[in-house]
Amino acid sequence: MRDSERNRNPIAEAVNEDRLWQRLMEMARIGGTSRGGVTRETLTPEDAQARALLIHWAEERGFGASSDAFGNLLIHRPGSDPSASPVVTGSHLDSQPSGGKFDGALGVLAGFEVLEALEDANIVTRRPLAVASWTNEEGSRFQPPMMGSAVFTGALSFDAALQFVDRNGVSVAQALDETLKATGGTVQHEFRLPMSTYVEVHIEQGPILERTGSTIGIVTGIQGQRWFTVEVHGEAAHAGTTPRQSRKDALSAAVRMVTALEEMTRDETDTVRFTVGRFDVSPNSPNIVPSRVLFTIDIRHPENGVLSNLADQVEPICMANAGSCGVTITETLNTPTTLFDGSVMNAIREAASRLNLPHMDMISGAGHDAKSLADFCPTGMIFVPCERGISHSEAEKASPADLAAGTRVLAEVLVELAGR
Amino acid sequence: MRDSERNRNPIAEAVNEDRLWQRLMEMARIGGTSRGGVTRETLTPEDAQARALLIHWAEERGFGASSDAFGNLLIHRPGSDPSASPVVTGSHLDSQPSGGKFDGALGVLAGFEVLEALEDANIVTRRPLAVASWTNEEGSRFQPPMMGSAVFTGALSFDAALQFVDRNGVSVAQALDETLKATGGTVQHEFRLPMSTYVEVHIEQGPILERTGSTIGIVTGIQGQRWFTVEVHGEAAHAGTTPRQSRKDALSAAVRMVTALEEMTRDETDTVRFTVGRFDVSPNSPNIVPSRVLFTIDIRHPENGVLSNLADQVEPICMANAGSCGVTITETLNTPTTLFDGSVMNAIREAASRLNLPHMDMISGAGHDAKSLADFCPTGMIFVPCERGISHSEAEKASPADLAAGTRVLAEVLVELAGR
Repeated sequence: MRDSERNRNPIAEAVNEDRLWQRLMEMARIGGTSRGGVTRETLTPEDAQARALLIHWAEERGFGASSDAFGNLLIHRPGSDPSASPVVTGSHLDSQPSGGKFDGALGVLAGFEVLEALEDANIVTRRPLAVASWTNEEGSRFQPPMMGSAVFTGALSFDAALQFVDRNGVSVAQALDETLKATGGTVQHEFRLPMSTYVEVHIEQGPILERTGSTIGIVTGIQGQRWFTVEVHGEAAHAGTTPRQSRKDALSAAVRMVTALEEMTRDETDTVRFTVGRFDVSPNSPNIVPSRVLFTIDIRHPENGVLSNLADQVEPICMANAGSCGVTITETLNTPTTLFDGSVMNAIREAASRLNLPHMDMISGAGHDAKSLADFCPTGMIFVPCERGISHSEAEKASPADLAAGTRVLAEVLVELAGR
Repeated sequence: MRDSERNRNPIAEAVNEDRLWQRLMEMARIGGTSRGGVTRETLTPEDAQARALLIHWAEERGFGASSDAFGNLLIHRPGSDPSASPVVTGSHLDSQPSGGKFDGALGVLAGFEVLEALEDANIVTRRPLAVASWTNEEGSRFQPPMMGSAVFTGALSFDAALQFVDRNGVSVAQALDETLKATGGTVQHEFRLPMSTYVEVHIEQGPILERTGSTIGIVTGIQGQRWFTVEVHGEAAHAGTTPRQSRKDALSAAVRMVTALEEMTRDETDTVRFTVGRFDVSPNSPNIVPSRVLFTIDIRHPENGVLSNLADQVEPICMANAGSCGVTITETLNTPTTLFDGSVMNAIREAASRLNLPHMDMISGAGHDAKSLADFCPTGMIFVPCERGISHSEAEKASPADLAAGTRVLAEVLVELAGR
């Protein structure tokens, strides 16, 4: 075989950049906002419309569609070996309120594009392929996020998940019932349906690929996170009359804590993710010394040992900077790092090389459905760049060429894995 | 005259500690809260009840009562010279929501106790005496504070003041109309009624007298204040994916600014009052890098030159610490220091010495009606201690002995000034 022949990629060439982009834009009209974003929260009428559109497209191409009892959809393309478990790809069609067009929708529609490309190229795989659209990845309406994939794999019980309620008191059970009615006609599949591999394409939601000029991120895992709530107890006092040494100023103490925590988490490689996202002050009046501050800490790092060391310093640092105030620290989340399957990572790396796409290994800073699946079957993820790393925002942008590149890598990987 | 005779103070001896305390406790029942405080905001039915009680007490003792068109009350005791302008004392009967029993009420009832003591001791002064109860000192319901005294002296126009509205859309005009109806029967006095001197007794609302073991504060003035609103403009980003060097973290920038401002305003003598009382974060979600912070700065100092120097550094310090964020700084208040009349201060100092009360000169950190009056006639203030300096709080406390001591000093001062 000559080099030129070895480098020909029939399935990658069958991926249609325009068709993928058109489908993404058509999907983005459902819940589309005037500023170019999408509001399509889980189990809303917009979510039901998005599901119906995907099922309609599947029917047009002759693919089967099924749903489990939690509304996790699968679009099926059979393989030559009916007894083989499928290779599955996918992501989610729900969005944040005022979210972007690509977060989630890309993973579902890139998978769908691969099925179409296989049809167009008349390629039959040994294993069946399926595209998953998981219910409630975002967690903005019902917490926790990644709910559908966790129910599917059994990490979260179905009965427990049905009972979560949104801010208006509507339960998952009610919202799910209405959504499933609106998308009737799919056959039922079971939870924990055997899968041979799971591969998910997603926008990076961070700036690293763009900054390094890489088109493909080979995701090595999902970094662990630790969350804390820090409550600083001071004493309200008159801003004009109370000397500094008599104050129990909760804001001053909280500011000292945040400064010391930022210092502690500063690393040369800029790998630690440290965020104080919420900071509530009482009574929050210009001329009253604050009596109470509640702030949150979100620390993430790819290495569990480093993450533990950082998290262990939160309490002593807050105590040391409390001054005359009291402080109460509560840990609200502790998720260790998930590592993806080495053979899936290799398949992605080799496909990116074959397609001459600049690529790099990277950890995911955000959670994804692939986190649930990683405990269930060999799992991997492919990242593509998004503009300036902006996501969870109407300003989220990505280029048609990058999205198609990620889809071509996915196509190569799925064909490879479905032949195993 | 022998020493023992020179040190006898008939008017001070006539001040009745128990009666003063009983009147304070009876007044505190109007709007009294279950936790020992008072909610008696200006121009509410509770305020009207408090006014009616004061007028009732005045009638019982044969004192006249008058009101101006803004509801500022005066209780009159005539002097021997009907052509002489009165010496006036007083404060306010309105309170903060969930405020204390003594802030304001003390100044009115201490003045009333002096009138009663003069009656009891059969002392006739040359000038008439009057006790003022100013409308809306607190400014919690209708801004600005010290409204009634400012309307009386002409610093604020009557027509403008009538148009301010509370958070429910009720105007000062409406609320005043209802209050004046409920306290009918007083005669009318004009705005800018001539006054020879104004002296106000108030709890310190700070911890300095208590800390130094002083009973009487001779107030030298009301310190100036400068207020700023600082708006920090960053960019929302995903807490898990966005490296520190790519962030425009409005909270990190605001924390750096507050730290640098606290450093800049730190003084050896603990004279500067620097407060960040309000701090609002957007979107205020644990896993989103904050896109915007709005915080307030309240700086006070007795010396206008020092205050100017401090205030001039606010903008450059905020700019220097903005990092990748934008910053907008708005000055919202600029009040220079008010200095009280030297001869009134001397009269207070001499009275405290005669009564063997430990005393000290001190600046007022808070605003008071005496600030309005200082531009109208020679003015002074007498402070008494309150427990741990706590005020604007249901926990506000003061001892009957200290309140009586301040009232005895006031009695000596009023008699002295009314003889001039």
